[in-house]
Amino acid sequence: MYFKERTHTCGELRESNIGEKVILNGWVDRNRDLGGVLFIDLRDRYGITQVVFEPHINAEAHQAAKNLRNEFVISVEGYVRKRPAETENPEIPTGYVDVMVEKLTILNEATTPPFQIKDDIDTHEEIRLKYRYLDLRRPKLQRNIVLRHKMYQITRKYFDENNFIEIETPVLMKSTPEGARDFLVPSRLHKGKFYALPQSPQTYKQILMVAGFDRYFQIVKCFRDEDLRADRQPEFTQIDVEMSFVDQKDIFNIVEGLMKDFFKEILNKDLQLPLPRLTFNEAMESYGSDKPDLRFDLKMVNLNSVFQKTEFKVFHDAIENSGVISGLLAPGCGDYTRNQLDVLTDFVKKLGAGGLIWMRVKEDGLEAPVAKFLSSEEKQNLINALSAKNGDLIFILSGSKLKTLNIMGALRLEMARRLDLIKADSEPKLLWVTDFPLFEWDEQTKRFYAMHHPFTSPRLEDIELMDKDPALVKARAYDLVLNGNEIAGGSIRIHNAELQAKMFKILGISEEEAKTKFGFLMNAFKYGAPPHGGIAFGFDRLAMIFAGENSIREVIAFPKTASAISLMDDSPSSVTDDQLLELHIKVRKSAHE
Amino acid sequence: MYFKERTHTCGELRESNIGEKVILNGWVDRNRDLGGVLFIDLRDRYGITQVVFEPHINAEAHQAAKNLRNEFVISVEGYVRKRPAETENPEIPTGYVDVMVEKLTILNEATTPPFQIKDDIDTHEEIRLKYRYLDLRRPKLQRNIVLRHKMYQITRKYFDENNFIEIETPVLMKSTPEGARDFLVPSRLHKGKFYALPQSPQTYKQILMVAGFDRYFQIVKCFRDEDLRADRQPEFTQIDVEMSFVDQKDIFNIVEGLMKDFFKEILNKDLQLPLPRLTFNEAMESYGSDKPDLRFDLKMVNLNSVFQKTEFKVFHDAIENSGVISGLLAPGCGDYTRNQLDVLTDFVKKLGAGGLIWMRVKEDGLEAPVAKFLSSEEKQNLINALSAKNGDLIFILSGSKLKTLNIMGALRLEMARRLDLIKADSEPKLLWVTDFPLFEWDEQTKRFYAMHHPFTSPRLEDIELMDKDPALVKARAYDLVLNGNEIAGGSIRIHNAELQAKMFKILGISEEEAKTKFGFLMNAFKYGAPPHGGIAFGFDRLAMIFAGENSIREVIAFPKTASAISLMDDSPSSVTDDQLLELHIKVRKSAHE
Repeated sequence: MYFKERTHTCGELRESNIGEKVILNGWVDRNRDLGGVLFIDLRDRYGITQVVFEPHINAEAHQAAKNLRNEFVISVEGYVRKRPAETENPEIPTGYVDVMVEKLTILNEATTPPFQIKDDIDTHEEIRLKYRYLDLRRPKLQRNIVLRHKMYQITRKYFDENNFIEIETPVLMKSTPEGARDFLVPSRLHKGKFYALPQSPQTYKQILMVAGFDRYFQIVKCFRDEDLRADRQPEFTQIDVEMSFVDQKDIFNIVEGLMKDFFKEILNKDLQLPLPRLTFNEAMESYGSDKPDLRFDLKMVNLNSVFQKTEFKVFHDAIENSGVISGLLAPGCGDYTRNQLDVLTDFVKKLGAGGLIWMRVKEDGLEAPVAKFLSSEEKQNLINALSAKNGDLIFILSGSKLKTLNIMGALRLEMARRLDLIKADSEPKLLWVTDFPLFEWDEQTKRFYAMHHPFTSPRLEDIELMDKDPALVKARAYDLVLNGNEIAGGSIRIHNAELQAKMFKILGISEEEAKTKFGFLMNAFKYGAPPHGGIAFGFDRLAMIFAGENSIREVIAFPKTASAISLMDDSPSSVTDDQLLELHIKVRKSAHE
Repeated sequence: MYFKERTHTCGELRESNIGEKVILNGWVDRNRDLGGVLFIDLRDRYGITQVVFEPHINAEAHQAAKNLRNEFVISVEGYVRKRPAETENPEIPTGYVDVMVEKLTILNEATTPPFQIKDDIDTHEEIRLKYRYLDLRRPKLQRNIVLRHKMYQITRKYFDENNFIEIETPVLMKSTPEGARDFLVPSRLHKGKFYALPQSPQTYKQILMVAGFDRYFQIVKCFRDEDLRADRQPEFTQIDVEMSFVDQKDIFNIVEGLMKDFFKEILNKDLQLPLPRLTFNEAMESYGSDKPDLRFDLKMVNLNSVFQKTEFKVFHDAIENSGVISGLLAPGCGDYTRNQLDVLTDFVKKLGAGGLIWMRVKEDGLEAPVAKFLSSEEKQNLINALSAKNGDLIFILSGSKLKTLNIMGALRLEMARRLDLIKADSEPKLLWVTDFPLFEWDEQTKRFYAMHHPFTSPRLEDIELMDKDPALVKARAYDLVLNGNEIAGGSIRIHNAELQAKMFKILGISEEEAKTKFGFLMNAFKYGAPPHGGIAFGFDRLAMIFAGENSIREVIAFPKTASAISLMDDSPSSVTDDQLLELHIKVRKSAHE
């Protein structure tokens, strides 16, 4: 159990150390016997150093080393030497030296791992998650976790330097209005009562503004008991920010400064500020998405004016019903086969489109099933509107506005994929999307819902519209979008009691309901609430993008599966009835019990 | 709703700003009408600035200002001027200027607060907690929260600079062996199964060592569903640390460096390193506590040798039964009245002592009820052993060792309080307590328990004692003690399967039980666990001490009461039966249900 502690890490030795007596501790990464001389790659998180066992240097150590297998933990003592010519490894910083071992101590043995400890292994993710402690030894995951560490530090340093105060908000709190997705925690001391885990610290950060903290931030765990979805986690991490006495521009300035730091320190890129901004309407019209990916162009075009007086019924109806006719040019795709076009038609139909109109652009005009329904002028105007050239392909969708634009946006992404428009080295593209609608109308329940949350302020110029036509009211809400991912969202909040009451009325929340649900926040607002607003970042997603990964599980040390199970510790799990008795609860035998 | 955003904070203006046009936003802190001229102290978290309303400057603003009451939120625009002579306030940095207001906007009104927003208010803590958003406006709490913020940043900067990686461990985890104090979270997706909230990330940080992360830290929320206790919180914050390939001295070095930074940056004191160390035995013998307060001396003295051959039965029995005779000198207390001595006797009796032996030191010897049982030599040796002088008072307790020392330790603290030995400006005293017993014997269940936790390594020299006499085995466990508070505790862990098995055996944990309880950690250990150890700090307590407070609630933004209730948001609370139905649980009507 005694062991010689390392003098150096496995990533540290260089030619300047030649001749020194050193001790290394680490894991056996690789193991070769070349004619009686044993070479071992010794690994720790700092790197790999080759250590050498020769029988004539220390017969005992050499003999013991024969028993070493991958992932054994050892301590070696020996001298640093220059590697013989031709055996150097310029790929790693320690590759010009090795350590001739004089003394070996086996600190721990290791069973054969279920998969090799190296990148790009072909192992089912379930096995990787079950043996996460081995998975985490892989260089890529080590890099991801270190990147995440770096992002924490950049974030906190930035906010600290900008006079923000880090404040911890409770994890055991009151069940919130979105209660259906709350994780609940039964109270032992108070029978029949429950805490809830926060879906976000929203109310607390607003309370902190009432308390005068002025600039608050926190990197904080949040919880949502959602249904199975591919890339969600029941617990996730947020960068949470709130500021007082500010308007949207102040939030933007602060956030843009943080993004500049991230780009510089992680990607070594100089982010140009201010960031581009699109309104929700502009984003939908041009990209068919409220989180447009601007790494490629492929803009959609509104064709309503082209077909204003058309006799083609489909387009005519769309315009008549305040809908939209949206066009997308696929450059050089005029030679797509009928089969390829059928596949794309199926693609949009699955998303709810009635069909997909396509036209091949030829030297002598448009070739398409619907061509005969369009006038020559319309065809020419269409070609002009899309700047279409011979050999291109035109797609058109029409129908109710948001739905049609959304489907065209999906087709835009699909075409980008087919045309390979997003390269590994594409410049990352950040932008703000602003002026979201304040309300969403729900057809099923025939009522308005808050698109963001009920404390989001309308644009001041839209306040009078609230009574007349709530659907037209825009919010002081904004999203930050990176490469087509929403990475942050926030709003300026309502701090005025009268306006808040109006908001609740439109949302169909009675005074009593508001009191039950938001009582303590509403109470706080009575004692002098400053104008305030904020934003929250999805930290896991942000880390995923900066790490160049496609799943947030690759940047979380101990993630759960899509069905919220931890395969490593096998939670959730059964507990004893004694435990449940203490908590005054029991598991129902059936829904009717 | 439109408002003029501040150009300066309320703590910013100086004489160099005189003549500038400025805008301030803040809360009305104080409100005086001096012969038609209104003076308002405007407050934000940066400070207070006096703003002045004179009717001849802007009649409208002056008129509106008459309606201002405390805690209204306002925006004022005006000119900075030098305060007239004699009206300056040298107590505050802005006290040489004020702002002559030209324009006033009321951003929000405020109901009269239930207590005044100032320090040292005489309000019941329940009211303060209910209206925490107002309580948090008080200067002291603002300072405490900012101090806490500073401590977070110092901590992370330090560990980052020392190559530690910050890693988030799960909040939704498997119920642990100490399950009885786990908060449980029912799973919606998996009927009848539960997550547990972590009492500490202990297993995960050990897993991270197996994963090769080598140096881990995290500031992390932990949870314990304990019974009512004055200064505990159901959720509390830990600085959690673990290191690989280390021994105790390496942990000490890292921790001492952090404490040096804290002392420098918070108290502006140069902490002398290395910190003093006491073994558990030394601490108990001299201070009667495993967390001795060294801000004052008042050392206890072992008197067994003095009374080795005594005929005084009480002392004789103590020695005979391997117990202890412990003495404490109370300097200058020889004039304590019989009544005072009775009170102290009651004090130790309540703690379980049979009685308290006291002796007044007089010029001509010892005056005490028990004096007649002692020989002259014993009396003289006693006086020598305690360096007692005329006018002093001697206390003696005897009996079984740990119990007697503990009670004497409590008496030592009580005497320090009575003698006023701890001054507000006493030097803070930090020390390590080491070599704790590995096991505690429980008389009730007649078995050994792990004093720290079952993964704590014994001292290597004590391993063979484990079979012979477990009670004598010392652990490689250590506590960091500040001013008599345990602020951190940790240990070197067992990384060897054989030793771990022996440990479980002594603790009466069967192989099967170990597998159920610690299965995934034991599995991980099979794949190459490095030697490792760590420590965890109670962050709330540490912040409390640095803030000079007596309750951790004073350094937590939103604390719960001793009965785990949040008075502000009224949690825990009832939830709807629909919510419980979704979670497949119901509240028991009775314990028999």
